[in-house]
Amino acid sequence: MPGKESDGSGDTPNGHDPGSLRIPTTGSGGALSPSAELSPPTDEQLRALARAGAAWNQGLPALPRLPVDLDIPQESAPRLSGRWTRLAQVGEFQLHRGTVEAGRPALEPRSAPGRAISRLRWAVLGPPLRSSAVYAERMGKLTGLPILSSDLLSSVAYGPEALLTALAAGGAAALGLSLPIAAVLVLLMLAVGLSYRQTIQAYPSGAGSYIVASANLGERAGILAAIGLLIDYILTVSVSIAAGVAAITSAIPSLSHDEVAIGLAGIGLVTVGNLRGMRQAGYVFAIPTYSFVAMIYVVIVGGLIKVGGHGFHPVSPPHLNGTEALGFLLVGRAFASGATSMTGIEAVSNAIPSFKKPEARNALVTLDLMIVMVVSMFAGLMLIVHFNGLVPRRGETLLSQIGRAALGGGVPYAILQASTALILFLAANTAYNDFPRLLFFMAANDHAPRRFLRMGERLVFINGTLLLTVIAGGLFVIFRGQTESLIPLYAVGVFLAFTLSQAGMVRHWFRDHRRGWRWRAALNAGGAAMSGLVLVVGAVTKFVEGAWVVVVAIPALAVGALAVRRYYGGLRVSLEVDEDSQPASAGPVCDVPAGCEHLLVVGVSRMNRASLQALAYARSLRQPVFALHVSPEDEEADHFRQVWTVWGNHIPLKVVESPYRSVVLPMTHYIEALHEQRPELTITVVMGEVVARHVWERFLLSPLGPRLRRNLRSVPGVVVTTVPIHR
Amino acid sequence: MPGKESDGSGDTPNGHDPGSLRIPTTGSGGALSPSAELSPPTDEQLRALARAGAAWNQGLPALPRLPVDLDIPQESAPRLSGRWTRLAQVGEFQLHRGTVEAGRPALEPRSAPGRAISRLRWAVLGPPLRSSAVYAERMGKLTGLPILSSDLLSSVAYGPEALLTALAAGGAAALGLSLPIAAVLVLLMLAVGLSYRQTIQAYPSGAGSYIVASANLGERAGILAAIGLLIDYILTVSVSIAAGVAAITSAIPSLSHDEVAIGLAGIGLVTVGNLRGMRQAGYVFAIPTYSFVAMIYVVIVGGLIKVGGHGFHPVSPPHLNGTEALGFLLVGRAFASGATSMTGIEAVSNAIPSFKKPEARNALVTLDLMIVMVVSMFAGLMLIVHFNGLVPRRGETLLSQIGRAALGGGVPYAILQASTALILFLAANTAYNDFPRLLFFMAANDHAPRRFLRMGERLVFINGTLLLTVIAGGLFVIFRGQTESLIPLYAVGVFLAFTLSQAGMVRHWFRDHRRGWRWRAALNAGGAAMSGLVLVVGAVTKFVEGAWVVVVAIPALAVGALAVRRYYGGLRVSLEVDEDSQPASAGPVCDVPAGCEHLLVVGVSRMNRASLQALAYARSLRQPVFALHVSPEDEEADHFRQVWTVWGNHIPLKVVESPYRSVVLPMTHYIEALHEQRPELTITVVMGEVVARHVWERFLLSPLGPRLRRNLRSVPGVVVTTVPIHR
Repeated sequence: MPGKESDGSGDTPNGHDPGSLRIPTTGSGGALSPSAELSPPTDEQLRALARAGAAWNQGLPALPRLPVDLDIPQESAPRLSGRWTRLAQVGEFQLHRGTVEAGRPALEPRSAPGRAISRLRWAVLGPPLRSSAVYAERMGKLTGLPILSSDLLSSVAYGPEALLTALAAGGAAALGLSLPIAAVLVLLMLAVGLSYRQTIQAYPSGAGSYIVASANLGERAGILAAIGLLIDYILTVSVSIAAGVAAITSAIPSLSHDEVAIGLAGIGLVTVGNLRGMRQAGYVFAIPTYSFVAMIYVVIVGGLIKVGGHGFHPVSPPHLNGTEALGFLLVGRAFASGATSMTGIEAVSNAIPSFKKPEARNALVTLDLMIVMVVSMFAGLMLIVHFNGLVPRRGETLLSQIGRAALGGGVPYAILQASTALILFLAANTAYNDFPRLLFFMAANDHAPRRFLRMGERLVFINGTLLLTVIAGGLFVIFRGQTESLIPLYAVGVFLAFTLSQAGMVRHWFRDHRRGWRWRAALNAGGAAMSGLVLVVGAVTKFVEGAWVVVVAIPALAVGALAVRRYYGGLRVSLEVDEDSQPASAGPVCDVPAGCEHLLVVGVSRMNRASLQALAYARSLRQPVFALHVSPEDEEADHFRQVWTVWGNHIPLKVVESPYRSVVLPMTHYIEALHEQRPELTITVVMGEVVARHVWERFLLSPLGPRLRRNLRSVPGVVVTTVPIHR
Repeated sequence: MPGKESDGSGDTPNGHDPGSLRIPTTGSGGALSPSAELSPPTDEQLRALARAGAAWNQGLPALPRLPVDLDIPQESAPRLSGRWTRLAQVGEFQLHRGTVEAGRPALEPRSAPGRAISRLRWAVLGPPLRSSAVYAERMGKLTGLPILSSDLLSSVAYGPEALLTALAAGGAAALGLSLPIAAVLVLLMLAVGLSYRQTIQAYPSGAGSYIVASANLGERAGILAAIGLLIDYILTVSVSIAAGVAAITSAIPSLSHDEVAIGLAGIGLVTVGNLRGMRQAGYVFAIPTYSFVAMIYVVIVGGLIKVGGHGFHPVSPPHLNGTEALGFLLVGRAFASGATSMTGIEAVSNAIPSFKKPEARNALVTLDLMIVMVVSMFAGLMLIVHFNGLVPRRGETLLSQIGRAALGGGVPYAILQASTALILFLAANTAYNDFPRLLFFMAANDHAPRRFLRMGERLVFINGTLLLTVIAGGLFVIFRGQTESLIPLYAVGVFLAFTLSQAGMVRHWFRDHRRGWRWRAALNAGGAAMSGLVLVVGAVTKFVEGAWVVVVAIPALAVGALAVRRYYGGLRVSLEVDEDSQPASAGPVCDVPAGCEHLLVVGVSRMNRASLQALAYARSLRQPVFALHVSPEDEEADHFRQVWTVWGNHIPLKVVESPYRSVVLPMTHYIEALHEQRPELTITVVMGEVVARHVWERFLLSPLGPRLRRNLRSVPGVVVTTVPIHR
């Protein structure tokens, strides 16, 4: 499993200083934990719990015996006849080491539509997987390379074209700058690549930008890096799928009207594949990746031989009408666009724990290979373009033009296009691995909603996966599947993460002081500076073209992540078990049973079986209880009192007259007034509620319970209980 | 208050044979009862209740003393400091004859946005009204006439035009048929008018089509008549507003692009007016109605004098290209379209109790006057059109053309157009009175959802009013405010109600046998036959043009009304208090406290203050209780058991392992399995639930309680209680 954010450090207890992020993993392989939502308490919390428990049973009668067998014996259970027989299913629960285990049948919803949906889901996504099926795959160098490199290497399918498209706006003269800009980009690739080599050496157990930036530059830097990467992953999906579709439509122009549909189908396929949680078998990645690399080298070598035959005289590009003056903006834009050729270079540094031993060594070799490949492919392609005088044009990708020029239109060209499309889809797939996982890590550190911690039936992070599909698919539709219009958004996010990660490394060396730390720091500083340059150039030169969206979104999301953390932090403190400190804002509720003094209020509108059941429920709890009736008119109030007397007046009745006919609000205020009288009381409002069997029946019933519950939610110590009444 | 469906028969107890509808009214004036939702029980029900109450207290300890004063003494209440001080408001509750009365302050929601909305609503719609403010207005002949006639008389503003528009499709030759058709329509008006005279004589306390048809032809006929009328009211709003707007844009053509906006503003104004529940002062209706009638007579008399000057030689209409052959379809369509001139004729027969004494006599005189007026206005206008060779044309109504021809373009013309627009808006207003009231009567007889019984703060039926606005406004927008395209829908509904009501009268006379019952029956039979003719002709000839919608909708809604009645009927039977008959489908729940055996289950995911509060709440009720923990993994399960032991193991703990990580479904099934073991138990599931203070916080919390409640709703005897935890 290629990984960007796992450091294999095992499950750290809730130590929440911003520098040390919590990475909830299970077992030795660094697999992510399905129990991340339920982290075990610290020793201190346990001690507080023990102290809180000491006072628990004071002043209470003995616990009554349980009237049921909690182990759910299969044979002894009497089966109800009639409507409820289908409840009894063999294998729902099995007793196992004193634990009752819920089997597959216990996952089936009861309602017919619910069951149909579940069955359909299991048919499409596969049956649920047990938590114990979580495992971590280990990669060798040769399987690791294709899995980790698809994102990076596929970028050369659109990077050079993006560069030239930006330059072409300046006319033919501007195109002459393509080689110098490419040379700078090669330098940038080397610098960033060397920077990441250092990260691997410094964090041999693996660390992504989120971790490196958090640990060295603080929480905010970590959040910014993470958000930059999240945006990167989203755009990787959109851009890769768009480029993959362009590779297809370049080869088969008749499909060019269905670009959006093909792209959405691709996103859908990748989504379903990821929701199934398929394990990426090495060969699935190996074939398209190696064939893509091979075809690119064929194209480059063949092309160079051909132009060598003409004595390396470049063909003049066709005349272009520049729409823009050649200046800083134009060059900067071309530079930032071309820099998208190196997105994905960070993958290896996150995935170290997934390598076979020696992990760091294998990772370094893989990274070296990847850098060599991306630099040579990028440089080679730029040379071919230069010598053949190719320019981007609508309807056919630059890579397709190169392929046609070098290979003709036959089978080799078809292989090139097919492997291009495939590696681009694989790149999208890689983002689908990384996005939900990064959100998981953020959620484990309170920087994202907890629901991203949740592992679904197939052991994948469903919420993150679906979020990615919604956003990336939405972008794809909004931009009508045009790669080039998405690229302006691209550089900012990813180079923000690069910059922060490398800057974090500089700080790391200043703290670490291992041998050669000075030149190491210098190297990372160089990487950080160059990444930062791309970031700034990208943000400035493409600001109007769309980068402003990202420039605005990143800080906004960062503020959101901090707010989420603040909320969860506050929540944790106020829920902390600690008998000494009563949080100031907590209402008057009982923490120990002896401290709970109850009052039950039964809301009654008319005397029917529903009311009687609610009354019986409340009365049988043997706590102080009274009935509350809200009446719109004097006359009705008198009627109701008579009815109450006829019934036998078994429970005190309070009639509240509501001359304005509102029921819920006067009830709310009345209960609030009782609460004010005795704030330490626990007031339980009991309402009978007829259960609707069909959706349309809900329109015929207007139950008060839910509205009352919503209204009384803000009053401490008030519980609203609805007793469901079945017809 | 003009009324269509009130018979002033007072509050009949729930006698539910279809023939005798329940009309819940209050006091002597026939005002509708604000207590209609809470009808008093019958004597038999009371006896059953007394029997049920007898067994109530067996085997129970004495009721504990209440820890609060239910009369909410203002002074003695200790006030909480801090966040809750604003709870204490003077005047929220007043003690009054042993009843606590909720004052105006008790209507204020607690939340700031809720308060803002309430204040805005009170500012726009006026402050809440007390139930005792319900009153019934009594009308004399002269005030009654304008109030009850606006719907009928305003119809001549669009009826003749609709007739001629339909004819014009047959070319100039077809226009020659306008006078014969008009003559038949006059006959129809007289027949239906005489029919309704008889209804008044037979039901001197008033009866609408719903009542007459139900009483004489059975429930289904009553429902069909009511639905026909409901559709009539909807279309009255749409058509009258559209015609009113057309009167305005005919006079001021520059407004013609804003027709939809003006119309929606009109509907909005009428809606707000009706939500305020304004009492229709007689003069509000008198001025536009009388001025409209006067102007029409001026136009007719003036026009006739003018054409008399030319010796009554009709001007030939301009050449028209007929688009359709002259045949049955065309003539029938013209006939049915012209018949819309008499919609609203039924108003008096419903409103008898609103007249001063002698009610029936005053009503008869009013009806006679209305018939004379509508016949003379309709006939006169048709003659003027004929002699002046006028034809409908786009951009100006026929009435405006007539007015310009007779009055020139000056002030009298402006008065004509203004009073036309006003009387049309008043007609829409009349529908706004009738639609919610008819729904109220239907709801009182279980033919419509109970929520239509509800009287809002302003003593109006908000739900019916808003429903009418949504439907009529929607139609207006869909049809872009074009009167003529709405008229095809019109005839069917209203003439269905006429037909059923008159047919019911025939049946009535056959049962009644009063003096002259034979000719009375014959007269009503004539009215029924002619109405039925219009109904059939309208449905057939305009089927394709849009009447099919109504033809489909009426039976569909009737089936819906019967289903609603069946549901409420079944509900009533199964909720009936009757110790002998246990409904077969009712689950095992306790009707008397001694019969309730409790088991409490506390769902616990981690041990924090929220869990402890839920545990304390459950334990303090002193019933058998255990804690349920759902764990995704062995390891986590062991952790949790340790924590439980550290805490002190005060309550039995059951760990259910859910290797597929689902929490809610295994919990649901586990509780169901317990229920199966001891179906007679009442199982209460207690869950702590952190209260979100802001909407965005809800996205960060994913409480299980609501999902558990939804899932367990179908299991009898299981109650899900969420204990709100405040931070």
